[in-house]
Amino acid sequence: MASDIEIARAGKMKPIQEIGDRLNIPEEALLPYGRTKAKISADFIDGLNGKKNGKLILVTAINPTPAGEGKTTTTVGLGDGLNRIGKNAMICLREPSLGPCFGMKGGAAGGGYAQVVPMEDINLHFTGDFHAITSAHNLLAALIENHIYWGNELGIDQRRVVWRRVLDMNDRALREIVCSLGGVANGFPREGGFDITVASEIMAILCLATDLEDLQKRLGDIIVAYRRDRTAITARELEADGAMTVLLKEAIQPNLVQTLENNPAFIHGGPFANIAHGCNSVMATQTALKLADYVVTEAGFGADLGAEKFFDIKCRKAGLSPDAVVIVATVRALKMNGGVAKEDLGAENIEAVQKGCANLGRHIENIKQFGVPAVVAINHFTADTDAEVQEIKNFCADLGVDAVLASHWAKGSEGTAELAEKVAALAESGAAQFAPLYEDDMPLFEKIETIAKRIYRADEVLADKSIRDQLRRWEADGFGNLPVCMAKTQYSFSTDPNLRGAPTGHGVPIREVRLSAGAGFIVAICGEIMTMPGLPRVPSANHIKLNDEGLIEGLF
Amino acid sequence: MASDIEIARAGKMKPIQEIGDRLNIPEEALLPYGRTKAKISADFIDGLNGKKNGKLILVTAINPTPAGEGKTTTTVGLGDGLNRIGKNAMICLREPSLGPCFGMKGGAAGGGYAQVVPMEDINLHFTGDFHAITSAHNLLAALIENHIYWGNELGIDQRRVVWRRVLDMNDRALREIVCSLGGVANGFPREGGFDITVASEIMAILCLATDLEDLQKRLGDIIVAYRRDRTAITARELEADGAMTVLLKEAIQPNLVQTLENNPAFIHGGPFANIAHGCNSVMATQTALKLADYVVTEAGFGADLGAEKFFDIKCRKAGLSPDAVVIVATVRALKMNGGVAKEDLGAENIEAVQKGCANLGRHIENIKQFGVPAVVAINHFTADTDAEVQEIKNFCADLGVDAVLASHWAKGSEGTAELAEKVAALAESGAAQFAPLYEDDMPLFEKIETIAKRIYRADEVLADKSIRDQLRRWEADGFGNLPVCMAKTQYSFSTDPNLRGAPTGHGVPIREVRLSAGAGFIVAICGEIMTMPGLPRVPSANHIKLNDEGLIEGLF
Repeated sequence: MASDIEIARAGKMKPIQEIGDRLNIPEEALLPYGRTKAKISADFIDGLNGKKNGKLILVTAINPTPAGEGKTTTTVGLGDGLNRIGKNAMICLREPSLGPCFGMKGGAAGGGYAQVVPMEDINLHFTGDFHAITSAHNLLAALIENHIYWGNELGIDQRRVVWRRVLDMNDRALREIVCSLGGVANGFPREGGFDITVASEIMAILCLATDLEDLQKRLGDIIVAYRRDRTAITARELEADGAMTVLLKEAIQPNLVQTLENNPAFIHGGPFANIAHGCNSVMATQTALKLADYVVTEAGFGADLGAEKFFDIKCRKAGLSPDAVVIVATVRALKMNGGVAKEDLGAENIEAVQKGCANLGRHIENIKQFGVPAVVAINHFTADTDAEVQEIKNFCADLGVDAVLASHWAKGSEGTAELAEKVAALAESGAAQFAPLYEDDMPLFEKIETIAKRIYRADEVLADKSIRDQLRRWEADGFGNLPVCMAKTQYSFSTDPNLRGAPTGHGVPIREVRLSAGAGFIVAICGEIMTMPGLPRVPSANHIKLNDEGLIEGLF
Repeated sequence: MASDIEIARAGKMKPIQEIGDRLNIPEEALLPYGRTKAKISADFIDGLNGKKNGKLILVTAINPTPAGEGKTTTTVGLGDGLNRIGKNAMICLREPSLGPCFGMKGGAAGGGYAQVVPMEDINLHFTGDFHAITSAHNLLAALIENHIYWGNELGIDQRRVVWRRVLDMNDRALREIVCSLGGVANGFPREGGFDITVASEIMAILCLATDLEDLQKRLGDIIVAYRRDRTAITARELEADGAMTVLLKEAIQPNLVQTLENNPAFIHGGPFANIAHGCNSVMATQTALKLADYVVTEAGFGADLGAEKFFDIKCRKAGLSPDAVVIVATVRALKMNGGVAKEDLGAENIEAVQKGCANLGRHIENIKQFGVPAVVAINHFTADTDAEVQEIKNFCADLGVDAVLASHWAKGSEGTAELAEKVAALAESGAAQFAPLYEDDMPLFEKIETIAKRIYRADEVLADKSIRDQLRRWEADGFGNLPVCMAKTQYSFSTDPNLRGAPTGHGVPIREVRLSAGAGFIVAICGEIMTMPGLPRVPSANHIKLNDEGLIEGLF
């Protein structure tokens, strides 16, 4: 079979206006970036208010393993499948981060015959959204330093500046720095550091904002530092919110591209799935729901993190009501969840599949808690045997859930027609009665406990008095109604990445809590969280180049 | 009179394809960024080879003062004036830097009725070129750190890493940092720092590259560090040049926009005018020469720096042959050069104008040394008296040079019709016999002396033995044929910014020399050079915002 990039290039893209036409987006509302990318104008989006919403379908997955589950690929394949069976469907994906493209893994635009295109552009600068976020973030950082430099009227405690800087690059050397060295003209030396742009609170804000006004309000709410008396200083007090909004006024507009089968796709925003909520932008999803009858979207990591945050943060805040969930599983990843080593995945092992299904079963149960009906998509790999696939189907049937084999990677929409039929029927069935897991007014620590016990199936949450005190202080300061954003390993229901399957009886230790006042959530951190990746020994940057025909090589 | 931004908004922009049509750029060669910006495809540019060149006109100026000379405004006004008198003309400008927009001054897209539009876009993210340069620059930085981290096979001396990082933001706190703190996983602590993106060698490279292949060669030639034995390590040895080229493949394509009078303008690249050569890209200028009969372009700072580098670096390297030079002067700036304080500029002062003309006269003489005929444009301010203007005209007449009053700021092309006639006649006269100031094979120190003595009219160049030794080492290493890029104050012919007029008898001290092996020049630094600006006490960022109609306020 051809490589992803060969398949992508062999496909024939349509001019983006043709894609827009299918969604009834008029030419003046489509702002082109080249011939095959466009932004949707904010004015046009405003005008959609009051239109009926389509059905919202979330694609999530079992706990990831190095064997892969193919969540993005399945999202693309299902979108194409729905269009194939005559539905008016579109997909909403996150934008890939530029930095990691030069490190270990390639892009994040799907694979095989289930891709979004132009894949090189999407994986590189795309429409500049991440660059705009980087600029807005670092402008705020510069304004903090500048305020201190010119007299520090607001009384910023230089030891308590919590706003770091960002770059869309994997650069471990910038994780911890001392800045403002070199004398009087360069400010007051202090510790600082850089995160990767996707970890910026501004990324989370852009993805949760409902319009420009809401964006500016959230940017103003960002807490940048504290005074000696621990009172917070916001971006608004630094008069930074206006200029930051100006820098983001194009970035907030969703990006329209197409799948290999020329179906419409929004790719917009890409917040971290640990310290943020890991979903594409609310504006993209809401706009898609006005333009299409079916909207397929995904959330980062496995369902314990991704779906929970999608429901409890994104849907809660944006008033979205999902109609169906697709849980992606693969025979290979279930085998790994069942204890098989990566090098042994090629051999049939029904017992391991059966064992690994405990992980899938747990996710199915969890989704039900949110009142949304689910279907399982078995993302097909060529080495899978019929008996292994049947094992998954049987397991799901016992739980009263359909499991459908999907072979979009090899066949495109032909491989997801059956899945699309099931999903459409489920979404139309009216079975969904969505409700978030907890109420807004539940105390913050109880929210953490609720997630830990009901989703992770832990016995207890372990947290020092200082953390509980901090949560109570935030409640007193008026932040008690915020949802909680869990930052936990994606590899296990527990906080131990090696504990596969469906563990019980564990404790969830909370190491640290952070307030993202602009994004509007409390982050509860249960372990080491890396917000600035490094590059591997042989980074893919070493092999990325233009070939003699001017085409990009080595990116994927 | 209305403000710049009010005038810009009142103007009616044409769809960029209409502007392209006038230049016979086919639709498929015009890559749109929104409706009023586009990039010109590299393929189309390749196809222009062999076409006859138009006439090349450089706009330069006397030594700048806070009173302003209006070089960019005059470039725009002259372009419009040439079109007004029936010529097929276009202009080539530099892209403004994002960072400074949030500091002291506004944008850099002209002013009054001589502007390029859309001015907000041009001053903010535009088509993302600077973001691409920032990414490519910081990727190289990350690859250097990563190479050291994983074993340092190339033997980089960590004390001799000369590649800093860049951000397009004024942030003094990043001028000098210590990075890689925090333990083993974050690398080896060492000193580093950030420059503003326009100071990146990659910016200079992008502006001097003739095509993608040349770009990659130059990127590979960048010296990033030295070994303990002082041998150089290049970006090519780090296998970084391919990925950097991929990041810059769109950025290298010139950007087409329009003037307020709907005439075509390329705005592309913007290297520093001190540590780099301060001209827009060679690709934009060369392409413009194929598409138009007259191309008006500008160079940074006064003619002692800007025109000299335009001739000796850009024209030499790109094989360009300029046909005429316009030297911009204002009554106000000549008065300041004649010793008048800024607060007294309102009053008529013919004696001061006469005295200040010494500065203008020196620049006129200097331009003649390059074999290019010149005309003086007196950029009109409302407070100028007829007698003051006449004084300049008389002074120029004595030197055999025309001086023409230009009032494009208030009147657009109507105010430059006379200037345009003079310039067109001069360019067509065949009087130009361009030659750079020195030959390629002149020893490096002699090149510096030649510029200092013949352009700055210094008596001598002062340089320590270590600097002369360094220059000789570079000659031995094969860099002796490079031109010299002078980094000197823009406010005086001398290295003392307070020495206005036409000083003689001074010495030019060379503090430091740097090799920009990728850009292809030796930088000779004669004083403090700031490569990362700071923000003022009240930065303009505090007042930049979207107003109730969604329009940007406070940017200009």
